Amino acid sequence: MKADRECVTRLLKTARGQIEGVLRMIEEDQYCIDISTQIMAAQAILRKANGEILRAHLESCVRGAAMCGDEREKDQKIEELVEVIGKLTK
Amino acid sequence: MKADRECVTRLLKTARGQIEGVLRMIEEDQYCIDISTQIMAAQAILRKANGEILRAHLESCVRGAAMCGDEREKDQKIEELVEVIGKLTK
Amino acid sequence: MKADRECVTRLLKTARGQIEGVLRMIEEDQYCIDISTQIMAAQAILRKANGEILRAHLESCVRGAAMCGDEREKDQKIEELVEVIGKLTK
Amino acid sequence: MKADRECVTRLLKTARGQIEGVLRMIEEDQYCIDISTQIMAAQAILRKANGEILRAHLESCVRGAAMCGDEREKDQKIEELVEVIGKLTK
Repeated sequence: MKADRECVTRLLKTARGQIEGVLRMIEEDQYCIDISTQIMAAQAILRKANGEILRAHLESCVRGAAMCGDEREKDQKIEELVEVIGKLTK
Repeated sequence: MKADRECVTRLLKTARGQIEGVLRMIEEDQYCIDISTQIMAAQAILRKANGEILRAHLESCVRGAAMCGDEREKDQKIEELVEVIGKLTK
Repeated sequence: MKADRECVTRLLKTARGQIEGVLRMIEEDQYCIDISTQIMAAQAILRKANGEILRAHLESCVRGAAMCGDEREKDQKIEELVEVIGKLTK
Repeated sequence: MKADRECVTRLLKTARGQIEGVLRMIEEDQYCIDISTQIMAAQAILRKANGEILRAHLESCVRGAAMCGDEREKDQKIEELVEVIGKLTK
């Protein structure tokens, strides 16, 4: 993975911590809206982590393949991006 | 929380498991797209859990307040929903 | 509709204008990314208009029903919100 | 634009028609939720059109540049995709 490992790891550990917090809130039967708010915070962090990973992927893996990869590698990179963008625009 | 506790807990534990999987993938320096795909899967599950929690909240807490809550309680429910919908339409 | 009519109408006319602009760009065979950027701008405006409409709906129609509507009206409001939030969390 | 012109034009004309419909609904002071539903339908169509445009862009423009474009062209394609994905993961 080409993204800043420390940064992405920190984001994901924060999201995991929030989800663990939500699981505790459910056990303690806390209020729905407080639980929803915490889940939406975790979603925002995952969005940020995913954006960071895809940005770094474009700037290194995709650029690398475009610059000096063989045709098969270039095609593979394009197909992967088609799938990712397909999910993001769904 | 009014949503089906078991169902929501299972969804959140699945999302947590996926995030732990992503953290391992990062440690093992796996491919960006595979990591991104796993994060998007966790995001989809969190969306589902949040939808379930908000649905149950509307059908029980909000309905309950609307039916027999005092004015202050009704106002609070409305304000909470304004905030939630504000986030969802951002 | 309870939202500020002028504000929402202006947003929607802007979105319509952008879509008309996109249709012209397609006719002139302009660059994909420029067209995509214009569509995403229209999407952002529609999101804003929808958020404004739902906010005003909650603060007037839903609050009104909660305060002094009959049971059937309250139920209807709840069901409508369940459907809206279902779409927003999909 | 590399996407199927007819298909994308039809989608955009449908979205424009829905927005015109919403403008009429506002003039006729129709119900908030019906207006919101129509806006969300137009948003879904714009998402579909944008996904189609970006898919075709990747498979032709980006692939073309990767295969036989000069370094400057390849860099430009990468930067454009970084910006698009930045917006889609916001």
